[in-house]
Amino acid sequence: MNMEERTKVYNQAREWVLQAGAVIRDKINDPLTIDTKSNPNDLVTTMDKDTEEFFVTNIKSEFPDHFILSEEGFGDNLTNMDGTVWIIDPIDGTMNFVHQKRNFAISIGIFHDGIGEIGFIYDVMSDILYCAKKGEGAYKNEMRLLPLKEKVNMEEAILGMNHFWLCSNRLVDEQTMQQLVKTVRGTRTYGSAALEFAYVAEGIVDGYLTMSLAPWDIAAGIVIVNEVGGVTTNIDGKQLDMLSKNSVFTCNTSIQKNIVDFLQKGRK
Amino acid sequence: MNMEERTKVYNQAREWVLQAGAVIRDKINDPLTIDTKSNPNDLVTTMDKDTEEFFVTNIKSEFPDHFILSEEGFGDNLTNMDGTVWIIDPIDGTMNFVHQKRNFAISIGIFHDGIGEIGFIYDVMSDILYCAKKGEGAYKNEMRLLPLKEKVNMEEAILGMNHFWLCSNRLVDEQTMQQLVKTVRGTRTYGSAALEFAYVAEGIVDGYLTMSLAPWDIAAGIVIVNEVGGVTTNIDGKQLDMLSKNSVFTCNTSIQKNIVDFLQKGRK
Repeated sequence: MNMEERTKVYNQAREWVLQAGAVIRDKINDPLTIDTKSNPNDLVTTMDKDTEEFFVTNIKSEFPDHFILSEEGFGDNLTNMDGTVWIIDPIDGTMNFVHQKRNFAISIGIFHDGIGEIGFIYDVMSDILYCAKKGEGAYKNEMRLLPLKEKVNMEEAILGMNHFWLCSNRLVDEQTMQQLVKTVRGTRTYGSAALEFAYVAEGIVDGYLTMSLAPWDIAAGIVIVNEVGGVTTNIDGKQLDMLSKNSVFTCNTSIQKNIVDFLQKGRK
Repeated sequence: MNMEERTKVYNQAREWVLQAGAVIRDKINDPLTIDTKSNPNDLVTTMDKDTEEFFVTNIKSEFPDHFILSEEGFGDNLTNMDGTVWIIDPIDGTMNFVHQKRNFAISIGIFHDGIGEIGFIYDVMSDILYCAKKGEGAYKNEMRLLPLKEKVNMEEAILGMNHFWLCSNRLVDEQTMQQLVKTVRGTRTYGSAALEFAYVAEGIVDGYLTMSLAPWDIAAGIVIVNEVGGVTTNIDGKQLDMLSKNSVFTCNTSIQKNIVDFLQKGRK
């Protein structure tokens, strides 16, 4: 994607993200219709669906040759990442949306031929937009984010991770995860993958570790973290597949090897 | 404490809390001098000490017959809770203060003859003041907090707790804690006890569970949670001792018995 095309798509997407956020803020206290998806804790609301539909309708009208990967089913069935693909989570952190009416985000990553070009993570209720264009840096509203610290020791790192890592799970044995928790300086759980990516990009969390995320949970974050010098892989340090679910580790590059090696000790 | 006295102390304390917060915001980007206390992850900065000294000096001057329990050692050595006692954490969530420059709070609870009369939890960087006077309700800035929902099922609850609960610990076996994590709807870790109390009072988290907290971590929170109909005990459902460390469970009253009973299954 050349710079002119990237800027055009970026400006249009930014406008839609802010518009969609304003609608959500307007309706935040309306009664909710909540469905559950795969399990009772996997929530979806009409707000998720309406917001996704807003993006899909606009994209199909304005960029008819672009493709869409999205959470609630209004997008395309893609088998490859050729061309320009919008990867959309209309509300990332739906549990926070439902229970807290804050701490959720609109997340949109735009990839071209498999390469992350544009990312938006919009903390709707705080009106904070994290955004990035490939090669042009990342921003938090109007403020350019600094490159991540060159050196963070594992012992001084704060890690975002949920509590299921310390329950019996199919990826890493719990003893290893307990050791990890005791080794790093601190752990946090915020309940929105997109926002945890944004916090890694800001450098207020040094890494975020998760067992299984869909492309729409991470696409924007990958682009934004990349622009401050961070790195995103699966928990084995390998490249992510943008067409399926992955384990995910996004972090300050200086802790990546140590943590990946640490996890390998308990890897199933 | 009568209402007139309570109002006088409240107004004075509120003024000092806002003043101290403004100073912290002014200096938030100054270079930090960080000490470690009992272990490398127990941080203290000159900002903690200076802020505590500000309160202690003012209290001793304005209310010479009041007592002070505080984190950094400028207060009194108390053996009982007689009279009026200010219980002060100048910066609750010092790790967040150091690493994130946000998500920390000034926490001040004022007790009289052992009864919580006044509470302030000031989210300094967001400029959000949670406050309460006994019997007069709790507020988030100018907005009165609603009474907590009458009925929350354990399966729909969001719990604040850190990851050490799922490591080998002296209080509850990890298997029980794993079961708890799988039973509730979600878990969060924010890294400031005072703010987690405030979130319980707001109803955006239904309970907050912690292994060992000092009086200054919880004094303000107890008063504020109490004013919205919540309850704070130790993890066995028993009354807290304000002169020593306690395990703590603050929550929506409707989940208290179920969670306390749940913990008993693995209680050591």
